[in-house]
Amino acid sequence: MKRRAFLKSAGAGAAAAGAGLAVTGVAAPAIAQSQPEIQWRLASSFPKSTDILFGASELIARRVAESTDGKFQIRAFPGGELVPGLQVLDAVQNGSVQCGHTCGYYYVGKDPTFAFDTAIPFGPNARQTTAWFQAGGLELMRAFMKNYNVIQFPAGNTGAQMGGWYRKEIKTVEDFQGLKIRIAGITGQIMSKMGATPTQIAGADVYPALEKGTIDATEFVGPYDDERLGFHQVAKYYYYPGWWEGGPNVSLYVNLQEWEKLPKAYQSILTAACAEANTYMIARYDAENAKALKRLIAKGTLLRGYPRELMEQAHKIAFEYYDELAKTNPNFKTIYESWKPFLDETQLWFRVAELPYDNFMATNSSKK
Amino acid sequence: MKRRAFLKSAGAGAAAAGAGLAVTGVAAPAIAQSQPEIQWRLASSFPKSTDILFGASELIARRVAESTDGKFQIRAFPGGELVPGLQVLDAVQNGSVQCGHTCGYYYVGKDPTFAFDTAIPFGPNARQTTAWFQAGGLELMRAFMKNYNVIQFPAGNTGAQMGGWYRKEIKTVEDFQGLKIRIAGITGQIMSKMGATPTQIAGADVYPALEKGTIDATEFVGPYDDERLGFHQVAKYYYYPGWWEGGPNVSLYVNLQEWEKLPKAYQSILTAACAEANTYMIARYDAENAKALKRLIAKGTLLRGYPRELMEQAHKIAFEYYDELAKTNPNFKTIYESWKPFLDETQLWFRVAELPYDNFMATNSSKK
Repeated sequence: MKRRAFLKSAGAGAAAAGAGLAVTGVAAPAIAQSQPEIQWRLASSFPKSTDILFGASELIARRVAESTDGKFQIRAFPGGELVPGLQVLDAVQNGSVQCGHTCGYYYVGKDPTFAFDTAIPFGPNARQTTAWFQAGGLELMRAFMKNYNVIQFPAGNTGAQMGGWYRKEIKTVEDFQGLKIRIAGITGQIMSKMGATPTQIAGADVYPALEKGTIDATEFVGPYDDERLGFHQVAKYYYYPGWWEGGPNVSLYVNLQEWEKLPKAYQSILTAACAEANTYMIARYDAENAKALKRLIAKGTLLRGYPRELMEQAHKIAFEYYDELAKTNPNFKTIYESWKPFLDETQLWFRVAELPYDNFMATNSSKK
Repeated sequence: MKRRAFLKSAGAGAAAAGAGLAVTGVAAPAIAQSQPEIQWRLASSFPKSTDILFGASELIARRVAESTDGKFQIRAFPGGELVPGLQVLDAVQNGSVQCGHTCGYYYVGKDPTFAFDTAIPFGPNARQTTAWFQAGGLELMRAFMKNYNVIQFPAGNTGAQMGGWYRKEIKTVEDFQGLKIRIAGITGQIMSKMGATPTQIAGADVYPALEKGTIDATEFVGPYDDERLGFHQVAKYYYYPGWWEGGPNVSLYVNLQEWEKLPKAYQSILTAACAEANTYMIARYDAENAKALKRLIAKGTLLRGYPRELMEQAHKIAFEYYDELAKTNPNFKTIYESWKPFLDETQLWFRVAELPYDNFMATNSSKK
């Protein structure tokens, strides 16, 4: 019941809420407020080496400083420096940092509902994700996250990711049986139901495990980040698409008490900075992934598409699993009942204008 | 020669420039600056009735006011109130307004290079457009626009548009011969080379002209905006995709002297507000177009895809035309030589991760 209560008030105002302006509301009256000096620490889940992911938090910090003549300072720390990358939520919740740049799906162990903050298999693409937040999804997610003493701001998206590095080709559903793949969370659950053996290995151990064949496959992000980890040196086949990450959102989590202490103008500036980070991250990934993909192919990487029958099986298992979760978890149910119809409705529209255009451009350019 | 000179310095710094941070640079030192009271007028090219297009400029105004405790006020005026919608550039250039929210392709009569600011036929989709700006395109465009006393900020995108309303079906290239379609700019030129008769009609006269058959077809934006104009009542066939507007960007044009007069913090706040408008506009269109499309279909609108051979012919003519323009117009050439390779390179990446994901989701959801 308690879980239900916090979501009750979320529905009514959802339609009116703009993604960026939901919290700060209408224009502030022209009354001068002081500009206090404020210093925050931001714990990122991402290492410096993933410079686009980490760069987005640096952009937020820079934008906030510039917009306040340096009075509101945020210092961004890479994953692991203040807290381990997967414990950013906890650090924000208990106030040991004021904010963190992270992905909700790292915290599905606490509640699978967190996954809607980032991505779940066969979920919306990047544009649909942003549109859903805008159309009421953000308000629902914030009502949920309030339970964790957090207010959340969409602040980055990677676009559709790749489907990982494989030592052997996957030609049929059978090839997935017993496959040892390094993957976690809801996708791990689904792959397990498909007969694979999801494995959890610490970041630094993935490369040697793949090299030795202790695991058969691993996934990470996309060409730009993956190339740096060198997976192409120990696994030949690079699969697409990452059907569990069609448009993963990265969020800024802010401790609620710290948020409420901010002057209205600083709240407004931080909100806009997060929206800018959203635009920045995907734009950089789109440009850099394109270049990195060309380099990987030149180095001998072989691109392979997941067999359609495998994706169809995964899709079926995924939505059966979500239906089950919705039956037992009221938080998940509340979000899912907004998220799923939105996904279906926007899909229809994307099929009409966006996809035929993109497909024409893709097939036409391929002829040259 | 003069036209060439302004572009010379644009190349070197392009790679380092973030779309949002190109102008304001690194974090400002922590020296207190005054917060002067500043009032600006913003001339939009768009009427209030296109509430997402106009809404983006209202969002910019609101964000800037909130972020400065109301000290920097921008008042947004709908198209036609201060200046005609297609003369916003001139008003910004001569300083009669401080800024305007408009589309570069309205000004191709001055120089076809302006089209790169918005969209040209068979150009990048929304994500590619933003990524190109980020990867150096914005710096090139700004070098060009400096000639018009303007600094430009991407501040909205509609996503791929629809291909317009037709009284009769277009089944072959022959059906395009002599077709009277209301369309302007570069697309008009291309359609003319394809045998159609592009026609210019003032906004208010389009509906009666289509009703009477004075014109055979017209184009506007997408389901949400088009529905309000009621074209579905006088033309049955709604074509997709709008191959001349794969991801049109809308920009804020700011008068250069007014920009330079702003305190650094206000410049920073305005820059972030424009980035937020970018996220806002496409998210709202994606949500609202989806709903409007369903309503239009329920009202009897028949969706039709442009014949592939017609699009292939248009594509060929388009790029021949761009190659011609690049030969005679050095501004166009400079931009085109950055834009075209970027389009081709990112296309390759989109074909691998994004499109297979989107296509799977589209075809899978269609089975239900």
